[in-house]
Amino acid sequence: MIVQQQLSITTRGRGTQNITQDINRLVSDSGLSTGIANIFVQHTSASLILCENADPTVRTDLEAFMSRLTPDGDPLYRHTDEGPDDMSAHVRTILTDSSLNIPFNSARLLLGTWQGIFLWEHRSHGHSRHLIITLYGD
Amino acid sequence: MIVQQQLSITTRGRGTQNITQDINRLVSDSGLSTGIANIFVQHTSASLILCENADPTVRTDLEAFMSRLTPDGDPLYRHTDEGPDDMSAHVRTILTDSSLNIPFNSARLLLGTWQGIFLWEHRSHGHSRHLIITLYGD
Amino acid sequence: MIVQQQLSITTRGRGTQNITQDINRLVSDSGLSTGIANIFVQHTSASLILCENADPTVRTDLEAFMSRLTPDGDPLYRHTDEGPDDMSAHVRTILTDSSLNIPFNSARLLLGTWQGIFLWEHRSHGHSRHLIITLYGD
Repeated sequence: MIVQQQLSITTRGRGTQNITQDINRLVSDSGLSTGIANIFVQHTSASLILCENADPTVRTDLEAFMSRLTPDGDPLYRHTDEGPDDMSAHVRTILTDSSLNIPFNSARLLLGTWQGIFLWEHRSHGHSRHLIITLYGD
Repeated sequence: MIVQQQLSITTRGRGTQNITQDINRLVSDSGLSTGIANIFVQHTSASLILCENADPTVRTDLEAFMSRLTPDGDPLYRHTDEGPDDMSAHVRTILTDSSLNIPFNSARLLLGTWQGIFLWEHRSHGHSRHLIITLYGD
Repeated sequence: MIVQQQLSITTRGRGTQNITQDINRLVSDSGLSTGIANIFVQHTSASLILCENADPTVRTDLEAFMSRLTPDGDPLYRHTDEGPDDMSAHVRTILTDSSLNIPFNSARLLLGTWQGIFLWEHRSHGHSRHLIITLYGD
């Protein structure tokens, strides 16, 4: 059995948003018990991560790490049409994930205690981001 | 229902190749309507990315970014048996994806407007690269 | 059909462990022939990679690469509660994979000749790491 839905998230510019509860709600409402949740972002400048969910400085540090690794306005880049955060956003997307594939059982995601699902907006300004959630199993 | 096929791509040395149409053709020919396409590369020095599909400088910039991050002939590396691009190719593969998992509906991949599927050859010379495409759904 | 199992691996501190045979055994014991194996790590400081399986210096070099890219005790980080390897372990996890999705056929993983599945412990000390293996197919 397959259940497929769209989820739209409005971001407020660069940063992470915890979407674990949104996904768990879709799993518990699906009527499925055991299977895999595929979470897919339809963009090339926003991505998904599984990350420590308790201390927000983990995500601040990740942001700082990425800013050092792939700074906005890097003179290396030629693709600058949409501003200094354009190409760095593409690189950050490539280095993280466009889809996550997470097992569930008893209609709950089988995440570890400290794992949260985060949508990571890589552009400076907020966007409406579209995700496809596909659940398959029994 | 599961449909599994092999796809072989001849690369012309380091660089990206858009394989979106190849995958969409397999999806539309599969007889499946809704599900997930798993695209898997059977190599450790070539990988997959979902990337901006309109402006080719995005991929030139990605190549430049990787060349700075993990240069060929890096004195850090001991695994140099097959030349200066050997270990850098392994690192680039690890930092990107060996498999992509993309939802489809109405027998079409649910990609965003700007998303393309690219095979990324990380070795200097061309190779024959083997991919396994597994489609599952209804 | 879906078969889901837990696999626990005791690590001996930072480094990689080849778990290919463990996963292949679960596939061959599952009764399934064709499908996808989802391997999921329930932690935010250990991850999975598909990596060259013949020459161990590939993994030594990967370790050296990560130590240069995201060194322990990096003054950039604020999340240092559990020691100098805490935040670097989270970054390494984000840059690699929390899940792998590998096709199988005739009850064998369709890995390339040089591909091995490795669990990568990113903390200095050993831990008990829990993985969920979900196999689905025919």
